[in-house]
Amino acid sequence: MNNTAFKFWEKYPSLRSDLGEVHELMKDTIKVRDKDTEEILLDMIDSGGKLLRPAFLLLCGKFGKYSKKKLAPLAAVIELLHMSTLVHDDIIDDAPLRRGKQTVQASKGKTNAVLLGDFLFARCFMLLSEKTSMKFMRLVAKVISQICLGEMEQFSSKYQQNVSPRKYLKRISAKTAALFSLSCYIGAIESKCNPKLIANLSKVGFNTGMAFQIIDDILDYSGSVDLVGKAVGHDLEQGIFTIPLIYALKTDKNKELTHLLSKSSYSKEDVSAIIQLTREAGGIKRAQTLAEKYTKKAFHYIDMLPEKEEKNIMRELVEKLLIRKY
Amino acid sequence: MNNTAFKFWEKYPSLRSDLGEVHELMKDTIKVRDKDTEEILLDMIDSGGKLLRPAFLLLCGKFGKYSKKKLAPLAAVIELLHMSTLVHDDIIDDAPLRRGKQTVQASKGKTNAVLLGDFLFARCFMLLSEKTSMKFMRLVAKVISQICLGEMEQFSSKYQQNVSPRKYLKRISAKTAALFSLSCYIGAIESKCNPKLIANLSKVGFNTGMAFQIIDDILDYSGSVDLVGKAVGHDLEQGIFTIPLIYALKTDKNKELTHLLSKSSYSKEDVSAIIQLTREAGGIKRAQTLAEKYTKKAFHYIDMLPEKEEKNIMRELVEKLLIRKY
Repeated sequence: MNNTAFKFWEKYPSLRSDLGEVHELMKDTIKVRDKDTEEILLDMIDSGGKLLRPAFLLLCGKFGKYSKKKLAPLAAVIELLHMSTLVHDDIIDDAPLRRGKQTVQASKGKTNAVLLGDFLFARCFMLLSEKTSMKFMRLVAKVISQICLGEMEQFSSKYQQNVSPRKYLKRISAKTAALFSLSCYIGAIESKCNPKLIANLSKVGFNTGMAFQIIDDILDYSGSVDLVGKAVGHDLEQGIFTIPLIYALKTDKNKELTHLLSKSSYSKEDVSAIIQLTREAGGIKRAQTLAEKYTKKAFHYIDMLPEKEEKNIMRELVEKLLIRKY
Repeated sequence: MNNTAFKFWEKYPSLRSDLGEVHELMKDTIKVRDKDTEEILLDMIDSGGKLLRPAFLLLCGKFGKYSKKKLAPLAAVIELLHMSTLVHDDIIDDAPLRRGKQTVQASKGKTNAVLLGDFLFARCFMLLSEKTSMKFMRLVAKVISQICLGEMEQFSSKYQQNVSPRKYLKRISAKTAALFSLSCYIGAIESKCNPKLIANLSKVGFNTGMAFQIIDDILDYSGSVDLVGKAVGHDLEQGIFTIPLIYALKTDKNKELTHLLSKSSYSKEDVSAIIQLTREAGGIKRAQTLAEKYTKKAFHYIDMLPEKEEKNIMRELVEKLLIRKY
C-alpha cells in the first residue's frame, strides 16, 4: 500500500490490513511477462489513491456475512477498473498530474495510456469471470459503460454555457457516483445482506459519490495544487464547465461571464477572472450547499444502518471525505 | 450491411442473410439515449469491414448443431470488440484512414475515439453476460488482453532493428490471429462440435489470421491506397517494422537499410528508399513465402474437415482472403 493510503487508514487497523491484501491482489492481477509493461502498471498501483472504493466495498460487506476471501478480489477489480478509467480520462483531459504525480499519458505517452487502460480493463473482466456471477458481471459492465457515456457527455458539452444543473448531476451520477454505489452494492450483496440493507448501503455509496465529485469540482475553483494534487482551474481551462460555474452563469446579469467564456481559449488571466466572477456570483457557495445536501443524504442513510462498529467507521470516513476545506 | 460486405458475400446468400442479422444486432447493441454518440457508432458499424470474424464464427457453427439465434449475438459481440480495438489502434497509429474512410480519431478527435472504444468494449461485456457462460467470458477477456499486449509490444519495439521473426510472429498471433481463432472456437463449441473438430476449426482460424496479418503487412510495402484502403508505408513511417523489413535487415550486408532506419524520422523519400531496399533484399518475397506457409496450413486444416457445403465455402473464403495481389 502506498504511504498516502497507509496514513489515511491508520485509525482502522483491521480495515487497513484487509485493504493491504486488496492492494497485493491488484499487483497479482496485472502480472505480465513483459517486465516494462508490468513496471508501468505496478507504478500506477503504487502511486494510486486511497483505495476508497475497495474500502466502501469491504465496509459494506461487514454488515453481512463478511468473507475477506470472497470480497478482496472483487474490491481489487473495482479499484483496477477505476484506475483504468482514470488512465483514459487523463488522455482526454491531457492531464499532466494526477494525485500530485505525473500521469501515464504524460510520462509514457498516449499510446501506452490507451493500451494499458484497455489491458487493465480486459484483465479485470478475466478476474471477474473467475470470481463472480454473470448477473454481477453485467452490472459491472453497465457501470463502466455509464462512466464512458458520462465522460462523453462531458466532452460534448465542452465550452457550452447552457448545461443545466440537472444535466450536470446526471453526468456526475454516471461518471462517479455509479461506481461508489456499485462498490457498496457488491460488498452488501456478496455478504448476503437483506434487500433493504443492500439498497440502504448502495445509497450511502451513491450520495457519497455525488458529494465527492461536487467537492472535487469546487476544488477546481477554490483549491491549491498542494491540496488537490492537480492544477487549479484545470477543468475550466479545458472548457469543462462544472457546477460552480453553471450556477454562476444563471445570475450572470451583465453578461461578464458569458462574454469571457465565449473566447475560443482561456489564458491564465481569463481563468483567474472566471474563477473570481464565479465566486462573486455565489456559484461556489451554491455548489457547497449542493455538496452539503448530498453529504446530509449520505449521513441520513448511514444513520439508518444497524448498530455496528462499521457504522461508526463509515460515518467517520464520510466526514473525512466530505467535510473538508474547499 | 454496408456495400462492401454485401458484395463480398454475394455468392453465399444464406451466410449473407445471417450476417445481415448480425449487422442488425450490432446496431441494436450500441443504442444509447444520446443521439450524437449513437450516430458516430452507427457510422462506424456501417462503414465497417466485411464481417470476417462473424462469418468464420457462423461457418464453424454449421459444422455442429447450428443455431442462428444463439450464434448471431455472439458474432455481433466479436465484431464489436474487433471494432473497439480498431478505434483505439487508430489513435495509437494516428491513422487518418481505415478501410478507405476517415477514422473516428481523425474525424471526431482522440477523446471520442478513446471513449467510444471503451464504451463499445463495456457494452460487449454486457451483452456477453446475457448470452454466454463465464468460461467463455474469460476466454474473450483473455483474447482482448492478448491483443493489448501484442499492440504494446509492437509499440515498445518501434524503431528497433533487432526484432526477430519469432517475436514478430508472437506479436501478430496475439494482436490478430487469436481473435480469428476465438471466433472459430466459439462457433464450434457453442454448436456442440466434438473436441477434435473444435480444435481443427480453431486452427483454421488461427492460421488464416496469421496469413491475413502477414499479407496486410506486406501490403504496407507493395500495395496502393486504392487496394489497401490506407496509405502505403504507413506502418513504416510510424517506426513499426514488420516482417518484410525484419527479413530484409537480416541480409543487409552493406548496412544501407540499417543506416536509413537509424534516422529519427523518415521522409517520404526515406520511406520509398526503405521499401525499395526491402524489395531488393528479398524481404517481400520471403514474407510472401511465410504468408503462403500459413495459408497452406489453413487449407490443410480445412481439408481435414467433414464434407459439408460449408467446407467449400470456407475454402473459397480463405482463397479469396489470402490468395490476393500483393
